[in-house]
Order: sequence, then structure tokens, then C-alpha cells
Amino acid sequence: MELFEAIQTRRSIRTFREDEVPRNKVKIILESAILAPSEGNLQSWRFYVVTNKEVKEELAKAALDQKFVAQAPVVIVVCTNLQAVTPYGKRGRELYALQSTAAAIENMLLTAVSQGLGACWVGAFREDKVARILNLKTTLRPVALVAVGYSAEEPPSRGRIPVEAVSVFLE
Amino acid sequence: MELFEAIQTRRSIRTFREDEVPRNKVKIILESAILAPSEGNLQSWRFYVVTNKEVKEELAKAALDQKFVAQAPVVIVVCTNLQAVTPYGKRGRELYALQSTAAAIENMLLTAVSQGLGACWVGAFREDKVARILNLKTTLRPVALVAVGYSAEEPPSRGRIPVEAVSVFLE
Repeated sequence: MELFEAIQTRRSIRTFREDEVPRNKVKIILESAILAPSEGNLQSWRFYVVTNKEVKEELAKAALDQKFVAQAPVVIVVCTNLQAVTPYGKRGRELYALQSTAAAIENMLLTAVSQGLGACWVGAFREDKVARILNLKTTLRPVALVAVGYSAEEPPSRGRIPVEAVSVFLE
Repeated sequence: MELFEAIQTRRSIRTFREDEVPRNKVKIILESAILAPSEGNLQSWRFYVVTNKEVKEELAKAALDQKFVAQAPVVIVVCTNLQAVTPYGKRGRELYALQSTAAAIENMLLTAVSQGLGACWVGAFREDKVARILNLKTTLRPVALVAVGYSAEEPPSRGRIPVEAVSVFLE
């Protein structure tokens, strides 16, 4: 699929068909994720790929009871390894590590579209609960849940503030 | 260009030809940026598109004297509007706003590749200095500089930690 088509047709998908996501498609999504840029190429990301029903249900609860999280065939919990970004200090932990994982997530969402899948980036969740569910070391911080599956909805495009209104040109 | 080709061939470009970047290519890059997902579709991004030589030189100094920033034909300063994310409180300011702008930046980098351009995401800069140079309101926080132009180098791929080493499968 063309890059711009993927960017333009991506939607947040919250209703999924029950069909499983083939393992090779999950692999392609993760291969795209790790090609994102990162501070000093530190690649401080970790991915928990959850297909286990009970774990998904616990994650949905930790995500303020957003039930679609449990209904998604795959939930990828994206974590940042705070230890890995130590060379960049506070700015590394509080900015770079969040940015590089977000770039990885955007690659994942676009690649999901190109694979005929839908996905939703979930930011509203209790980090402490997710850490407990996955038994994360204290150096790993969960920064997003990404629900992935075959879409069972076709949400319209949400409007955008035009480029002209959010850009300033200094020539 | 195919999505995966863009993801795979993207590099951080720090040496540019002197050729100007056509305005329509800058426009396409910004159109891609604003299609990124954002918390509650708040779109808390602002873009300062700098082609002015003196301003680029000041930005390069604020970026810890990374001279290639001044040599890039275009420098896009990506800011987040902290006021816009007020509905999400601290988590909005310190997580969501950084993630959505980072997703927008990844769209920009991939689109630059598809337009035959090169780009570099610059995170190391003094935010207070950039704010002064651009005369930013206190509600705008600069989160990245993106240098864009026609590449004059062909950097090899930097290695990646394989997917297997950064992923855990819970089935």
C-alpha cells in the first residue's frame, strides 16, 4: 500500500471481527515498529504481544474499563526501557523515550492498515496496574496499549484543523 | 512509494544539497503530519516552517551548535500546544501531547522519504532558546526540530535489535 494512502485511511478502530490475526502479520507490524528512529539509536522499546484472553481482560480493566481492548484479537503493550535511555538523563526519560516509542507506534498503526487490519492507540490506562498485570520490572514503563484486529466498523474521517491554521512560515 | 519501503529506507540525513525544497513538497509533509492520531483528536501541534537563513542559524546554535541544522533548506520546529491538552491534565501535557506530536513527526519523516527528500529529527536543543527565537507563547512547547532537504549523503542502515529480543508473547 502507498504511504500516503495508509496515512490517509488510518482510523482508530474499536470494533473488531473475531478472526485471529495471523502471526506473520503481527511480525510485520513489529518489524515496522523497530525501524522507527530513536535517540542515539538506543531503541528503548519493548513490546508485550498479548493474545491471552484473561490477560486482555485485565488490560481492559486497567484501561479504565474500555471493553474493546479485551475484544481485540491482539493487544500490544508498548513499553519504554527507562534504563536504556540513561545516557540522556531526564530529557531522555521524559521526552526522547516517549517520542521514539510513539514513532514506533505510528509505524505499527500504518502497517496495520497496509495489512488490512485496524488498530487503536489507547493512552488512557493505569500504568501501575498494567505493570502489575505484566509483571514488569520497574525500569519498564508502559506508554501505550495498541489494540489490533480485523475491523468490524468503518468510522468516517474525523475532521482536521487545516495546515494553514497550525503552521507559521518564517521565510 | 510503498509504506514499508519508506519505513525501511528512512535514514537520519544531516548533509543536504543546497537546492530549495519546493513549497508543494513542504505542504505534503505538513498534510501528512496533521493526519496523525491525537488524544481526543485535539491536534495539539503547531509547526514553525523556517527557511529564513538567520533564524535557521539561531536554531542551530540553540541545538547545541549542530551546524547541519542551519545548512538544511527547511527546518520545521514542531511544538505542542499545552493549553489544547488541558482536558487531559498532567497526563495530557507530559505524555499524550508528546506522543501525538511524535506520531506527526514520524509521518513527516516517512513522507519526506516518499518525496525524494531526507530529514533528521533533532531532539537535542535548548527549549528556552528556541522559544525565544520564535517568540513562542508560554503555552507552546517546542518538542523537536526537523531538518529537511535533498540528501547529499547515503548513510547505511543502523543496526536494529531484532524483534525477538524486544518482544514478549503472552498467548
